[in-house]
Amino acid sequence: MHYFDYTATTPIDNEVLDTYIKVSNLFFANTTSLHRLGQESNYMYQKMKEELKCILNVQNHDIIYTSNATEANNLAIFGVVKNYAKGRIITTCIEHPSVYEVMKNLEKEYEVIYLSVDECGRINLNELEQAMNQDVILVSIMWVNNIVGTIEPIDKIIQIVSKYKKAKLHIDAVQGLCKVEPNFSWNDVDLFTFSTHKIYGPKGIGGLVYRKDIQLSKRLYGSNAQNGIKPGTLDVSLISSTTKAFKKFYPLTSFHQNDVLNKFNYLYNNLKELPFVIINTPLENISHYIINISIPSLEGETIVHILEDKEIYVSTGSSCSSKLKVPEKTIMAMTKNKLYATTSIRISLSHLVTKDDLDILIKAIKEVNYV
Amino acid sequence: MHYFDYTATTPIDNEVLDTYIKVSNLFFANTTSLHRLGQESNYMYQKMKEELKCILNVQNHDIIYTSNATEANNLAIFGVVKNYAKGRIITTCIEHPSVYEVMKNLEKEYEVIYLSVDECGRINLNELEQAMNQDVILVSIMWVNNIVGTIEPIDKIIQIVSKYKKAKLHIDAVQGLCKVEPNFSWNDVDLFTFSTHKIYGPKGIGGLVYRKDIQLSKRLYGSNAQNGIKPGTLDVSLISSTTKAFKKFYPLTSFHQNDVLNKFNYLYNNLKELPFVIINTPLENISHYIINISIPSLEGETIVHILEDKEIYVSTGSSCSSKLKVPEKTIMAMTKNKLYATTSIRISLSHLVTKDDLDILIKAIKEVNYV
Repeated sequence: MHYFDYTATTPIDNEVLDTYIKVSNLFFANTTSLHRLGQESNYMYQKMKEELKCILNVQNHDIIYTSNATEANNLAIFGVVKNYAKGRIITTCIEHPSVYEVMKNLEKEYEVIYLSVDECGRINLNELEQAMNQDVILVSIMWVNNIVGTIEPIDKIIQIVSKYKKAKLHIDAVQGLCKVEPNFSWNDVDLFTFSTHKIYGPKGIGGLVYRKDIQLSKRLYGSNAQNGIKPGTLDVSLISSTTKAFKKFYPLTSFHQNDVLNKFNYLYNNLKELPFVIINTPLENISHYIINISIPSLEGETIVHILEDKEIYVSTGSSCSSKLKVPEKTIMAMTKNKLYATTSIRISLSHLVTKDDLDILIKAIKEVNYV
Repeated sequence: MHYFDYTATTPIDNEVLDTYIKVSNLFFANTTSLHRLGQESNYMYQKMKEELKCILNVQNHDIIYTSNATEANNLAIFGVVKNYAKGRIITTCIEHPSVYEVMKNLEKEYEVIYLSVDECGRINLNELEQAMNQDVILVSIMWVNNIVGTIEPIDKIIQIVSKYKKAKLHIDAVQGLCKVEPNFSWNDVDLFTFSTHKIYGPKGIGGLVYRKDIQLSKRLYGSNAQNGIKPGTLDVSLISSTTKAFKKFYPLTSFHQNDVLNKFNYLYNNLKELPFVIINTPLENISHYIINISIPSLEGETIVHILEDKEIYVSTGSSCSSKLKVPEKTIMAMTKNKLYATTSIRISLSHLVTKDDLDILIKAIKEVNYV
């Protein structure tokens, strides 16, 4: 098997799965039960949350665990904007559906501005500056784009947004954490979202990290668990597995980043020689974990199926919208080319990808044109 | 260890945990990825969902998996009522916080009627009939009460509500499934909620089973996963573990129900001899998995801590609201006695409880009065 869909999800790491199993057996009691077993579970939950905050170095933040990053992105956006009857929200035209579709829904009540991106998928900071004013209640911009890997200039975005007291900054950090060294401090970001299954942890858990002084408007009602914002029985096993995954992979970010850079370069240099391949991923300001290409002579889905016959697994666009046969939103915004945007595939890398995997992929893509 | 808090949560069953581990390793790909690995995950998800529908015999229903029953109850209620600008909602005064607190929130926009309960915790069917009219959009009533174990007359409730075409019936079935044989068909219930960690499965997953022809108003926005109602990456491991838990324990419902009835009777007959113990759980129309008592001379929390020193684990009221030192809502509604409602403890049973466990508990309660 030659797996190149790490952006969609990662296999679970054995040590992380061991943590899940151990905690499931040892800390099964409900964190809200007053007896000692319950309080041991609660202590484990608090300890794991504090450890994760230490790893990310965000002592002024709290964490709300959700079932996935989609729920965390929804919570971040609704949680901030529903404190206001009206106002301006700024986002980009290349966000993940879990941000983009929320914004579409909010257009009825709020003024939503979608920043454009250049041919590299980067926002224009002047456009952001011009869109900022005292009415802005939220700016939501992804850190690393999930389709092409472009890194948005979060350091500069923080500088611009922080001049406006009311405006909160939310970063969808799902594709950056444990992959890209940030050139900014998480302490300067009001809210950001992570997903455990993107970093070799289990599915079923994501989270919103947010500054403690932010009052999130409630979307769910029930017990007082998680400040009453995400009520219901906590899964200490998934929470502990999340911390375990961050504990193992966050310190390896630079190491893996360099490793993947070499793999990216090898792949890039081989693919650029192929006249029928268009490389959509730019060369600068990117996460090297993604290389997006178009083969205009073939539909993306066709390529996926040709490659899977050789046990090579790549994706068309984002897997979260891959069943929709519409032009891929990010590629369309960057290239303005509908053909490129319907024939794109996303190859995503990992420290687990081997040179053999790459050679087999390159050979298969060379042959795709002759199918 | 003598665990009597099975109503709050259950330890995970070894076979269910094995399913979780196997599926985590074998079906890790994203269900929305178009390649074969992704489609194998998707097939597994669909298969597990269909198997669960077969077990529950609900071929006209679909299932949406959530992170817990709280989210499922919220989805059921908001999902139905938000299709209407106004209308009447009927519920009871003894619902779990994940229903009750949603209702409190809806009072601003909708007319919410809280049915009273008698001294046994049962609703009055005449009161329900009188509350029903053409404006009713939702009736939400729990099957088995989580504090005292009273079973509400769902068969009769179905007859009454089904006369009104617009009114949907939602049942919080969390404390009944795999514990009590229903005297009604799930096919006749529009929507019902389950929780996997109450039936020896993992935490982190609950679900809403709902008739396919019901359009649920959206609360989350993102991908098209789960009909776009609960978008985001699915956890096939948790979903498969849920089916495994139902597959193992649903067919054992009657067998375990009889086993627990014997344990309940043994405990009841011993406790009723103690002059300082008030038994709040009635004797008829109940799930024998719960026996709720008050010891008016001691606060519930004090009893919990006295017992935990002997490694006996019981709860005060519902663990979801156990940190709030307010009179327990259900006990208050049944007894109208604030003293009973602040000194209650909930002993919950399981097929895993042994005669030794019961004898140790009985001895400890006898001694509680002399502490």
